[in-house]
Amino acid sequence: MTENYDPIISLDPFFNPQSIAIIGASNHPMKPGGRPINALLGRGWQGKIYPVNPARDNIGGLKCYPSIMDIPDTIDLAIIAIAADHVFSALEQCAAKGVKAAIVFSSGFAEVGPEGVSQQKRLTELAARTGMRILGPNCLGLINANNNVMASFAFIVDLPPVDPKVLGFVSQSGAFGSVIYAAALAEGVGFNYFISVGNEADLEFADFIEYMVHDPQTMLIGGYLEGSRDGDKLRKVAEEALDNKKPLLIMKVGRTSAGSKAAASHTGSLAGSDRVYSAFFKQVGILRIGNYTDLIAFTPLFQSGRLPRGRNTAIIATSGGAGVTITDYCESLGLNVIPLREETRKKIDSVLPSFASSRNPIDLTAAVMTEPEIMAVTLRAVCEDPDVDIVIASLNFTIPDDHPVVGEIIEIYRNTDKFILIAPFKFPGAPVEPAVLEFRKASLPVNYNTMDAINALEQLTQFKEALERRKQEKYRIVPRSGPTPIISDLIRPGETLGESSAKAVLERYGIPIARQEVASTREEAVISARRIGYPVAMKVDSPDIPHKTEAGGIKLGLKSDEEVAKAFDEIINNVKNYLPTAFISGVTVQEMLPEGTEVIIGVTRDPVFGPTIMFGLGGIFVEVLKDVSFRVAPVSRGDAEDMIMEIKGSAVLKGVRGKPPADTEAIVDVILKVSDMVTDYRDSIEELDINPLIVYPRGAKAADAMLVTRG
Amino acid sequence: MTENYDPIISLDPFFNPQSIAIIGASNHPMKPGGRPINALLGRGWQGKIYPVNPARDNIGGLKCYPSIMDIPDTIDLAIIAIAADHVFSALEQCAAKGVKAAIVFSSGFAEVGPEGVSQQKRLTELAARTGMRILGPNCLGLINANNNVMASFAFIVDLPPVDPKVLGFVSQSGAFGSVIYAAALAEGVGFNYFISVGNEADLEFADFIEYMVHDPQTMLIGGYLEGSRDGDKLRKVAEEALDNKKPLLIMKVGRTSAGSKAAASHTGSLAGSDRVYSAFFKQVGILRIGNYTDLIAFTPLFQSGRLPRGRNTAIIATSGGAGVTITDYCESLGLNVIPLREETRKKIDSVLPSFASSRNPIDLTAAVMTEPEIMAVTLRAVCEDPDVDIVIASLNFTIPDDHPVVGEIIEIYRNTDKFILIAPFKFPGAPVEPAVLEFRKASLPVNYNTMDAINALEQLTQFKEALERRKQEKYRIVPRSGPTPIISDLIRPGETLGESSAKAVLERYGIPIARQEVASTREEAVISARRIGYPVAMKVDSPDIPHKTEAGGIKLGLKSDEEVAKAFDEIINNVKNYLPTAFISGVTVQEMLPEGTEVIIGVTRDPVFGPTIMFGLGGIFVEVLKDVSFRVAPVSRGDAEDMIMEIKGSAVLKGVRGKPPADTEAIVDVILKVSDMVTDYRDSIEELDINPLIVYPRGAKAADAMLVTRG
Repeated sequence: MTENYDPIISLDPFFNPQSIAIIGASNHPMKPGGRPINALLGRGWQGKIYPVNPARDNIGGLKCYPSIMDIPDTIDLAIIAIAADHVFSALEQCAAKGVKAAIVFSSGFAEVGPEGVSQQKRLTELAARTGMRILGPNCLGLINANNNVMASFAFIVDLPPVDPKVLGFVSQSGAFGSVIYAAALAEGVGFNYFISVGNEADLEFADFIEYMVHDPQTMLIGGYLEGSRDGDKLRKVAEEALDNKKPLLIMKVGRTSAGSKAAASHTGSLAGSDRVYSAFFKQVGILRIGNYTDLIAFTPLFQSGRLPRGRNTAIIATSGGAGVTITDYCESLGLNVIPLREETRKKIDSVLPSFASSRNPIDLTAAVMTEPEIMAVTLRAVCEDPDVDIVIASLNFTIPDDHPVVGEIIEIYRNTDKFILIAPFKFPGAPVEPAVLEFRKASLPVNYNTMDAINALEQLTQFKEALERRKQEKYRIVPRSGPTPIISDLIRPGETLGESSAKAVLERYGIPIARQEVASTREEAVISARRIGYPVAMKVDSPDIPHKTEAGGIKLGLKSDEEVAKAFDEIINNVKNYLPTAFISGVTVQEMLPEGTEVIIGVTRDPVFGPTIMFGLGGIFVEVLKDVSFRVAPVSRGDAEDMIMEIKGSAVLKGVRGKPPADTEAIVDVILKVSDMVTDYRDSIEELDINPLIVYPRGAKAADAMLVTRG
Repeated sequence: MTENYDPIISLDPFFNPQSIAIIGASNHPMKPGGRPINALLGRGWQGKIYPVNPARDNIGGLKCYPSIMDIPDTIDLAIIAIAADHVFSALEQCAAKGVKAAIVFSSGFAEVGPEGVSQQKRLTELAARTGMRILGPNCLGLINANNNVMASFAFIVDLPPVDPKVLGFVSQSGAFGSVIYAAALAEGVGFNYFISVGNEADLEFADFIEYMVHDPQTMLIGGYLEGSRDGDKLRKVAEEALDNKKPLLIMKVGRTSAGSKAAASHTGSLAGSDRVYSAFFKQVGILRIGNYTDLIAFTPLFQSGRLPRGRNTAIIATSGGAGVTITDYCESLGLNVIPLREETRKKIDSVLPSFASSRNPIDLTAAVMTEPEIMAVTLRAVCEDPDVDIVIASLNFTIPDDHPVVGEIIEIYRNTDKFILIAPFKFPGAPVEPAVLEFRKASLPVNYNTMDAINALEQLTQFKEALERRKQEKYRIVPRSGPTPIISDLIRPGETLGESSAKAVLERYGIPIARQEVASTREEAVISARRIGYPVAMKVDSPDIPHKTEAGGIKLGLKSDEEVAKAFDEIINNVKNYLPTAFISGVTVQEMLPEGTEVIIGVTRDPVFGPTIMFGLGGIFVEVLKDVSFRVAPVSRGDAEDMIMEIKGSAVLKGVRGKPPADTEAIVDVILKVSDMVTDYRDSIEELDINPLIVYPRGAKAADAMLVTRG
C-alpha cells in the first residue's frame, strides 16, 4: 500500500464499472461465463457488457468479441472465466488494454498444490507490475446490489436484493459465503455488497473491508474469515471502521486448529492462533460472531440508529417463566438485570394486580391481555428509571389491532434514549401482527427470536464500548519518548538468551530486574555475593536449561561465603549430571528477592499479527489453568490494564489470604516497556518470557527471563 | 409416598378418567370454566362430562348440575374453576363424593402472600386426609393428547395434536409452559401429555415425571423447572427414567439467583443453588436444556431409535467453510472431530477431485452437485471407519429428485450402527425436498437447523453416557459396611466445631488426620510435642477463629521445647489481640505434615438436595477461581472420581513443576467416607470443611477441619 493509496479510487472499477468484459463468455445461464451476463441483463445493469469468446458471434443478444483487444471501447472491469492455463495471458491482454480491475473465477491455482502456487505468484506479480487490481483467482466474484453489478457466478446473483441496502459482506469461502448471503437475505437483511475473495493473489479480505469503511452507502460490514493475510492491515481497517462508527462483524472459523509451532517459551506454547484472534478482535473492536444468525439479528438492531448506553437491563415479561429465562440469558452474556429504584416499582405496582411482580424481571402476568395499558405504564416507568440502559419487553400475547397502547409505546420510545427491544412470540408461519408493523415503522426494534436478539443486543453494547474506548486517551498508543535503546550488541539472530543476557536486554528498556552478576568460578561467586549483599540466590546461567529447578540449578537464601562457594560447586555438578551437553556460561549470583506475587509477561510472534504480548499469574495458573490474556503489540495503557483485569485469577493481585495488593501500575509499566521493545525490534525478537516478574505492594522486579531471537 | 405407592394407579384418574365434572362451568368458550368443556367436546373425548353450576341448566348441550353431589354418577376427575374462597368447600364435596383426582385452576393461594399460604395448606391437608389427589391450585391443568382429555384452560387445548405422540411435558410455569408446548408442537414435536403443576399443594413436578417414566406411551420427558420441592424424589425418578431408557430433558431456570444464605464455610459460600442443580443433573443423568429449541431438535433425533456409540465425529461438508464452522461447534461441545484412517481417506480420495479434501472435516466441494454419488461413497467410507461414531453430513445443495444416491444413503444408514445426521440447507419458507422426505421415512435424522441439531446430538451422547454409567458397578452407591460410627457425643445442635473437635469426628469415620493433641498450658504443649515428636506445628483451637493465619494463630516447624513454649505464649497473645472475645479452647500441637498437594473437601446442606459434597484444590484455586465440583450425597466411587476430574485444575494432581502425582484414590476414599458420614447424620450436619486435606504420592491427611451442626 503506497502512501497516497485511496481504497475508493483503487477498487471503484470493481464496484462501479462503466463497462464489463466477460472473457470466456458462455450462452449457458448457469455456467461461470454465462451467469454474470444473464444476471447483469436480468437485473438491468446500466453499463456496457462485452462478451469475449472466439467461438461465438453473439451471446444473449450481445455482440461477442474474439479477444478483449478487439473491443472498440475502454474496459473498466474484466471477468475471467477460462481454464487456469489461459488466465495469465488473458490478464496480460487486459493490462495491455488498460483494464483497471479483473476478477478471476478460474480455479487451479494455489489450492491445487505447488504448481498452482507458482502460477498464482505470476498473477500477484502481474498486478504489482501493471497496477491492474485482481480479485481471485478461485473466487465467486462480487455483487454490488446498489447498481446491479452482478459480477459473480454464485447462485445468489439470481436473488432479488432487499432494501434498505446497508450491509457489505466479504467472504473467504465462496460457497459458504453464498449460503450466508442467501440465508440472511431471506430473513430481510439488505446487502449492498458481496465479495468472494478466493485465493487473494492480489486484493485480500481487508482491502474490501477498507473499501466499505470508506464507502458512504455501507452502514455495517460483515465478514467470513478463515485466516488473515496481513494482521497490520486488518488492525488499521478495524480502527478506521470504529472511527467511521461502522460495526465490523466477523465470523472467524478454525477455532480448534491451534497454532502448532514448537515453542521454547511458555508464551509461545500458550498462544494458539485462535486465542490471539480473539484477543485481537477485542483489542480493535471487531465483533466476533459465531454464526450468520448473529448477522441476521444484529443488522435490524443497528439500523434502529440507537446504541445501548450501558449494560443495565430491565426485563418486562408476561409470564414469570419467560422473565427468568431471559434474565438467565442476559446475565450469562454480561447484561446486568439490575434492581429497579423504589419509585419505579411504585409506579408499576400502581397498575399491576397483586399477584404480578414489579421486581426485575417484571412479570405483568396474563393481566396484560385484558389491560394492555399496563404494558405502556410499565415501559414508561422503567424508561424513566435513571439506572436502566436497556429494556427488553417479552410479549407472549398479541396486542389487539389498533389498540391505543401501540401508539403509546411508540411515543415512549421516541421520548427516551434508552434502548428498547420488543420480543414478541409468534407461531412459525403465522403472519406478522399489525402492531409489530407499526413498531418497525417507528424504527423500534422487534425480533421474534428472543435469544438471538439479546445476543445481538449484547454485541451492540460491545460496539458501543469499543467506540467509547476509542475516545479515551489511555487507549491511544503512545510512542516511546527518547531515543531507541540499542540492544543489537546483546542479541544475535537465531539464539536463545539465558537469564543474564535476557535480563540485560530488559534492563536497557528500563525494566527493573533483580540485581545480579555472573560468576565463572566459586571465587568470583563469593566476591559477587559480597558486593550484592547477603542473602543471595544462585542459578545456573545456561541457554540449554529452561527449567532450572528440575536440573538442580537453583540455590536460594544463601547467607555466607561458605554457603555460596558450596552452592557454586553443587549447581555445576547437578547441571552437568542433568544434561552433560549443556553449555554453562556460569552461575548467576542474584539479590535474594523478597516474596511477592509472581506473574509472567511474555511475547510470542504470531504468524499473522506479529509480536503478541501475554500476561498471566505465575506457576500453576499459567501451566495448568492456562489463565492468560493476550494483546497484539503495540499496546496502549488501557490495553495493558485490560490484560490484567481479563484473567480469571486477577483477584489474586488485589491481595488474598492476608497478602497486600500488588502494584498493578508496575505491571502495566513493564507491559508497556515490553511493547516498546518488541515494536522497536519487531523483526529480531521471536519469543520472550519474563517469568516470574515479582510484584510488590510498590514496584516489581524481573527475577528470571529468557529471550529467543529470530533466525 | 408410602411403600406400596404406584404412580400409575394414583395418577391415572387425571389422565384416563371415565367422567369429568367441571365445577364453575361456563358457557363462554374462553373462560376457565368453559374452555375445557369446549375442548373436550371439540376433540371428541369419549367420557362423560358433567358441568356444575347452580346458575345454569345446560352448558354446551350438556345438563348442568347445581352441585357435584347432585350428579347421578361416579366422578373420576373434578376440575375446579371457581373463586379461591369457595375452593376448599368444593373440594370437600368432591372428596365426599368419592372423586379421585381434582384440578384446581383457581388462583389466590400461596402466590398472593401469607393469607393465601394458609388457605393452600388446608388443600394440602385435605389431600393427605382424604386420599384425593390435587393438581394445583393456580395451574392451567393438564392435557392427555392420547385420548383427548383436555382438562386445561390454556389456549393450547385448541391446537390439534401432532403424531407420533411421544413427549410428556411438565411445567412449573403455566403461561411459559404453554408457549413451549405451542412452539414445539408447531415444529412437529408430538406431545402426549402436558401438565401445568401450579402451586403444587399436593402433587408436584417430580410426581408427574414419575407417572411418565412408568407410562408405556411416553418415550421421552421434558420439563420446565424453577425449583424442585423434593430433591430425593427427583433423584429417584431421574434414576428410574434412566432404567427405563427415557431421556429426561429439563429446562431449569433461575441460574443467577444464587443461594444467598450466609455461610461460615468455604463450601457453603461457593454452593450457589444453580451449581448444585447442574452437578445433580450430571450425577443423575438429567439433560439440562437451555431453551425449548433444544427439545424441538432433540425429539426427532431420539425418535430415530439410535444412540451415538461415542464422541468421535466425521463431518462431510460441501464447502470448506461449512466444514470448519461445524468442526468448531462440535469441538466446543466436546464432540471430537478425529483424523480418519488412511484406508478411509484412500476410498474417499478415489472419487474426490484433486482440489477437494478427504481430511476430516471432509470437503466434497461443488463437485457433489454434478456427481451426487461421491456423497454416498464418502458416507460409506466413513461409516466403515472403525474409529468413527457419528457422521454429520452438511449438504448445501439440493439432491436431485429420484436420484439413486438417495436410496444408496438410506441403504448405508440401514447397514451401519453409526449415528448419521443429515443437515441440509433450505431457504426459509422453501418446501421440504423429496429426498429429505425419503430420509425421514427411513428414520434417518434430518435437521435444517444444523447447530441446533448438533447441540441435540451432543445431548443424545450425554444420555448414552448416562446409560453407560448406570450400568457400571462403580457408579452404584455402596452402603457402608459395619455399624454406624457414633459421633453424637462429639456434636451438639447449632454449634461450630473448631479444628480439634472437627477432626475427632473425622477420625471416627476413618478419615486420616494429622496426629494432634490439645494443650491448655505451655507445659502441656511441651509434653504433647515430645510425645508427637519434633518438628511440630501449633495452632490456636477456637471455634471463633476460622482464619487462623490472619489471627497470628499458627506456628510451623517448631523444633525444640523452647520453641514450643514460646510459640504457645505468642499464639495466645496474638489471638487475644486479634479478637479479644474469642473463646480459646487451647492450642493444638500437631505433627508437622510434610508438603503435599492441598485440596479441600467440604459439605453444605442444599435446601433442596440436602448434604452436598464439594471438592477443589486448596488455597487460591478455591478462593479466587472457585474451581470446585459438587455432587449430592450419597455419592458413588464413580461420582467421587468424576468430581476430581471435573475441576479445571485437576492436572495439578497428576504432578506439575517436578512434583510427583498425588494419590487420587486416597481423595476418593475421603470423599466416600464424608458421604457416609453426612448420609448417616443427614439431619445433624450443616457444613463441613476439610481444608486442607494434604495429599501425598501415597495417602492423604486432614490437616485442618471445621464442622457446623444444625441448629
